[in-house]
Amino acid sequence: MNVAIIGGTGAEGFGLTLRLAQAGHHVTIGSRDADRAAAKADEAKEILGADAQVDGAENPSAAAAAPVVIVTVPFAGAAAIYESIAQSVRPETVVCDCTSPLMASVGGRASHALHPWHGSAAEFVRTLLPHGTRLVAGFHTVSAGILRSLDKPVDSDTFVMGEDAEAKAAIGSLADSIEGMRWVDLGGLQMARIAEQMTPLLISVNARYKIHDSGFRMTGRDPWGAPG
Amino acid sequence: MNVAIIGGTGAEGFGLTLRLAQAGHHVTIGSRDADRAAAKADEAKEILGADAQVDGAENPSAAAAAPVVIVTVPFAGAAAIYESIAQSVRPETVVCDCTSPLMASVGGRASHALHPWHGSAAEFVRTLLPHGTRLVAGFHTVSAGILRSLDKPVDSDTFVMGEDAEAKAAIGSLADSIEGMRWVDLGGLQMARIAEQMTPLLISVNARYKIHDSGFRMTGRDPWGAPG
Repeated sequence: MNVAIIGGTGAEGFGLTLRLAQAGHHVTIGSRDADRAAAKADEAKEILGADAQVDGAENPSAAAAAPVVIVTVPFAGAAAIYESIAQSVRPETVVCDCTSPLMASVGGRASHALHPWHGSAAEFVRTLLPHGTRLVAGFHTVSAGILRSLDKPVDSDTFVMGEDAEAKAAIGSLADSIEGMRWVDLGGLQMARIAEQMTPLLISVNARYKIHDSGFRMTGRDPWGAPG
Repeated sequence: MNVAIIGGTGAEGFGLTLRLAQAGHHVTIGSRDADRAAAKADEAKEILGADAQVDGAENPSAAAAAPVVIVTVPFAGAAAIYESIAQSVRPETVVCDCTSPLMASVGGRASHALHPWHGSAAEFVRTLLPHGTRLVAGFHTVSAGILRSLDKPVDSDTFVMGEDAEAKAAIGSLADSIEGMRWVDLGGLQMARIAEQMTPLLISVNARYKIHDSGFRMTGRDPWGAPG
């Protein structure tokens, strides 16, 4: 699958880039700066080997070229980034928001949640995209630390939520392609109000236990994936 | 350990009663109605065997007699219940709140969270107890369904939070005594703002996947328990 990762030069986005490229996907790292994106793509190929399909582009070009666009940017910068790619997203594009609104965005702690007026970051960014954009939210519970430990399977599941079942399944299939990761369908986009708060929860656990890779597994069913 | 379970006649409280009595603790089921509490205690002994140490009492008596008081009541009834036991709680008593504020309390869905003014149900009930009560919150993520399946170890961890480390460890040791359960220290009581929302999350997952016992495991460390 061709995937653009907007914010792919950041820790979370670059970790996801490595895992998805390792799984055989073609990943375009998006950045505000094309040179920086290209340099990060080179870094990914150094880590994964020259066969890895990773390139770099400015965010709008990256978003325009891929059927799946994953946005991994800090909440404070999300509005500007989404506005910059809104015209590049086509009606069929699946957009996956990974933003977690943290008090760190306004100078507070990363272990404290921030509550956007719209209910969640995902519901806020929906207002910045063309009406009807196939928006899902996911990957809030998979830390950069876990993603970057390429020698270990990912020992954490991800929630996926949104109104478009096919779009959720597309993101779910990407999650499934990463060794160890499973996805759980949490329902409509509003459930991001809860899922996004798993990020400060994990950050708090990491701080208290002096670790870098807490995560979680859903129990009660295996495999997870699409319901039914 | 002697434990009182306020609301021990409800599904969650009775499940916890069974698991803790099975682990060898002496459990007093608290209810507004002493006869109902006694009948539920008899039911527990029928399930567990006559050696099980379970008895019943009215809520205030149950709360007065035990060093650890676990409160498992629906959010809509929590204020009245806490007011009824507030004078029974001694300075050394450890009180564990298990309440999750759900929209079901006001006629909405159990998969939707309700946001109390105080931030969380735990922070709200703190205002109903004598100043300085050793209040912790926990057990939001362990469903009645999981607890009642006594033939299976509990396949879900619990978060424990509060300001008093010894009180958290006391509740944690109860969690550890239940086969399969582990506990994770989430920090101060304010973290209940996130942990309480794991309940509607699990309720949503149960509904979508048509199961009754979704739960979750923390990854990144084993064992969990007290940090450090």
